[in-house]
Amino acid sequence: MEPMDVRLPQHWYVACLSDDLRGKRPLARTVVGVRMALFRDEDGRAAAVVDRCPHRNAPLSIGKICDGQLQCAYHGWRFDGSGACRAVPGLVGEEANRRSRQVGAFRTVEQDGFVWVLPVDPGALDGGNAPARPFRFPHVDQAGYTTVRRSLSVTAGLHAALENTLDVPHTAFLHGGLFRGGRPPVDIEVVVRHTADGVEAEYLGEPRPPGIAGRILAPEGGVVTHVDRFVMPSIAQVEYRLGDNHLVTTTAFTPAEDGVTDLHAAVTFRLRLPPRLVKAVVTPIANRIFAQDRTILGEQADNIRRFGGEQYASTDLDVLGMHILRLLRRAERGETAETNGGRPADRRFTMRV
Amino acid sequence: MEPMDVRLPQHWYVACLSDDLRGKRPLARTVVGVRMALFRDEDGRAAAVVDRCPHRNAPLSIGKICDGQLQCAYHGWRFDGSGACRAVPGLVGEEANRRSRQVGAFRTVEQDGFVWVLPVDPGALDGGNAPARPFRFPHVDQAGYTTVRRSLSVTAGLHAALENTLDVPHTAFLHGGLFRGGRPPVDIEVVVRHTADGVEAEYLGEPRPPGIAGRILAPEGGVVTHVDRFVMPSIAQVEYRLGDNHLVTTTAFTPAEDGVTDLHAAVTFRLRLPPRLVKAVVTPIANRIFAQDRTILGEQADNIRRFGGEQYASTDLDVLGMHILRLLRRAERGETAETNGGRPADRRFTMRV
Amino acid sequence: MEPMDVRLPQHWYVACLSDDLRGKRPLARTVVGVRMALFRDEDGRAAAVVDRCPHRNAPLSIGKICDGQLQCAYHGWRFDGSGACRAVPGLVGEEANRRSRQVGAFRTVEQDGFVWVLPVDPGALDGGNAPARPFRFPHVDQAGYTTVRRSLSVTAGLHAALENTLDVPHTAFLHGGLFRGGRPPVDIEVVVRHTADGVEAEYLGEPRPPGIAGRILAPEGGVVTHVDRFVMPSIAQVEYRLGDNHLVTTTAFTPAEDGVTDLHAAVTFRLRLPPRLVKAVVTPIANRIFAQDRTILGEQADNIRRFGGEQYASTDLDVLGMHILRLLRRAERGETAETNGGRPADRRFTMRV
Repeated sequence: MEPMDVRLPQHWYVACLSDDLRGKRPLARTVVGVRMALFRDEDGRAAAVVDRCPHRNAPLSIGKICDGQLQCAYHGWRFDGSGACRAVPGLVGEEANRRSRQVGAFRTVEQDGFVWVLPVDPGALDGGNAPARPFRFPHVDQAGYTTVRRSLSVTAGLHAALENTLDVPHTAFLHGGLFRGGRPPVDIEVVVRHTADGVEAEYLGEPRPPGIAGRILAPEGGVVTHVDRFVMPSIAQVEYRLGDNHLVTTTAFTPAEDGVTDLHAAVTFRLRLPPRLVKAVVTPIANRIFAQDRTILGEQADNIRRFGGEQYASTDLDVLGMHILRLLRRAERGETAETNGGRPADRRFTMRV
Repeated sequence: MEPMDVRLPQHWYVACLSDDLRGKRPLARTVVGVRMALFRDEDGRAAAVVDRCPHRNAPLSIGKICDGQLQCAYHGWRFDGSGACRAVPGLVGEEANRRSRQVGAFRTVEQDGFVWVLPVDPGALDGGNAPARPFRFPHVDQAGYTTVRRSLSVTAGLHAALENTLDVPHTAFLHGGLFRGGRPPVDIEVVVRHTADGVEAEYLGEPRPPGIAGRILAPEGGVVTHVDRFVMPSIAQVEYRLGDNHLVTTTAFTPAEDGVTDLHAAVTFRLRLPPRLVKAVVTPIANRIFAQDRTILGEQADNIRRFGGEQYASTDLDVLGMHILRLLRRAERGETAETNGGRPADRRFTMRV
Repeated sequence: MEPMDVRLPQHWYVACLSDDLRGKRPLARTVVGVRMALFRDEDGRAAAVVDRCPHRNAPLSIGKICDGQLQCAYHGWRFDGSGACRAVPGLVGEEANRRSRQVGAFRTVEQDGFVWVLPVDPGALDGGNAPARPFRFPHVDQAGYTTVRRSLSVTAGLHAALENTLDVPHTAFLHGGLFRGGRPPVDIEVVVRHTADGVEAEYLGEPRPPGIAGRILAPEGGVVTHVDRFVMPSIAQVEYRLGDNHLVTTTAFTPAEDGVTDLHAAVTFRLRLPPRLVKAVVTPIANRIFAQDRTILGEQADNIRRFGGEQYASTDLDVLGMHILRLLRRAERGETAETNGGRPADRRFTMRV
């Protein structure tokens, strides 16, 4: 049995960074199992079409972009951003565009430096129950804030990847020395709150994280405000505040193929230190952390496959993971908090970190 | 779903070049899903046997050839070209050959520099409805002609590979700069004719192909005669003539394993230029063209697999492809032109190249 | 169809060498399809637990050993050799160990330099019908004997690997030049005897093997005593004696994953030559022989898969192979010699080696 996976196709997902759509070559992406070719059309808008030429089914993503049209590598058929066929080279006395020669196009929205797509059947006109617009990354365009964007891929299901990103206790072990760990443990209080569109955990009384990362966030030490948030169906947010210092990492998760999840993260911060210095110091640390998480998620997924399915033993320390799973499963069944038992009350407990 | 494939086992297929059967080592080939070991027997004849030692099922193709017998690498059992067991080393007081120790042998014909096999169950005595002898490569032994032979493998089904070889419009895109393309397009006339054993297309009014290849074929320019032919079930031929200059590329296609097709081509020519010069100039160009076709066919097959089957939109420009598919399908059903609607009339139309 | 395989889980199998359980890192092994993590516990005893952390199912084998406990790499949960959970880092006001947080532990026995495990469901208390203790490697601790241990893995089923180890005729071909072969063949007598727990073959009248290996075993030449033994369900033994010279190779076979068998061998000898010289001369020869056997077994298994199952033609020369298969199959059905036709009589015949 495969590791459990969640399939919620009627939602917006990030397909790529805005910056990925430069240059002459289209981009291949798989979003909730749907393979698409992305490119900028004649008006510079991000376009996403089914990655299959209607002619002989070659992937359009290995073609090239000519004047904002996507040209197939095999016979040179051309398509615009709406999926209409604009050229069939060699054809005489006949219009290029016909219904049978169109390629399906997906709805796209470009905002906050990311390209979002709605991976529903492009033949379906309404896009199902998806909201009009995708989630907004906070503070990205706000004065005084700097944002660093980054994409990576993990061989794990959506739930395991979300849980990992919002999990506190693993940091002292998997990322030992980089992030938490290395000081005597203290008891802190955790409050779990259910929100209209997700669930969040606030960590009260956590001392400044040790190591270089902590010193950058809070040069003077002190107690940080730390909130972890899950927003349905695929956003994980980790926010730290200490006085004026503010750092929020927002990650949009995109289920790609079975067992593969793409992560598109924006690290947005307003810190006392110069942004270039912050980037120079934090980037190699973040890279190590990402690599360690990617490794453990891959090992976890392989092992679940090996043993024929999950068998989890959870404790209070698995603060958000099981709540996230419940919300995802509820959405798969098409239910909401209103139709399914209402929103749970807040919960408080102690964790040693 | 796998890309559509065609299985016509009761036909002759090229297994290898004659030159491949030199040396001390047998050759492993898979023909229409049948794995065989090929070698030259005591009389120097090309022999093909089931690639499995009857003793412990090791592949005979990893053994060696001793005095025209194939010796298994594991225990040294030996087989002749008819599949009879000629030695069981260590056995005392008993004949080596017994029915249970024989290995199945396939009918072979060696002609025109190629080794053909009939991949039907070697237990079946008659070989089904296969013709007595395989297809002859034309002009190969004719005075004044030079032939270059070459084998390669593509990860594509028989039909997709045949269509690619006989397709004109892709040359300006996939092989842009090497073959066609690079001059203002002209309108030419195409005639499609159904023959007794296939279908052919004649291209009328095509100017000499630009680039070095065209200059070799037709140093003085002018209009070439160009005919593309399909001969059931697996021959594709491309023929160019301009005055005395004559070049014909005949390719025998061999369905190997699922999704893999082997191509065995003979380029036969009589040109004004010295053959060695022609070879030196044409070989690197042909290699690039082969590599590009191999790449696009692999990408096409992967994508068809990804999307769960073909979904083709054809135009007049797909001159022979759909006819070839119809002929192959008809043969799979065991039908002929006579039993299935007769031979279609000729067809003419215009193509811009 | 896969090559035939034998599954006898309720038996002791070697998981690794004693020497493999040094150092800070646990070891991952798969025994009869059961994946386990091995390490030395607080008392230095070899421990084997299910290789899956009960918390989030990460493989425990990628963790580390801390004070004789196995610590998971993801969240730092710790387990002792009995599988009890000894720490859940961060958890406050609650015992770490609970039934749901225990990991299954397997019975182990360490003897003769090997670690044996009983790969039955660790939830089952009695371990089924397995004998109290595993097979003893003979002469290992006896004065005057030297033992060299070695593990390797082959991509073959248990039966094919056992047969290969106890097969005489292949040595002149697969290992030609290294072992047998290279002298005029002689006729020897073979006696096959069925024992209480297996089957053995004695080779009478075999001259000293040629080559360096033979000269080491029997510097003065002469006729050696040579017995090959199979002991249920997974021991193959090859014994040579010539006067005081004595060499016995005992190999314990461990079915790992489907189509993979691990071999753990002890070469035990008492020879006239200094042990270090024997090792220096024999090791590279043994390595070549192992590599050749591994290659042919892999080729055999691949070919059996290719052709959809075994189809063997046996002769008298396959002295022990078919007997071994019968014994294994009988054990799979839960039968013994008593319930199934009794022990066959001895058999004699001639073999040319």
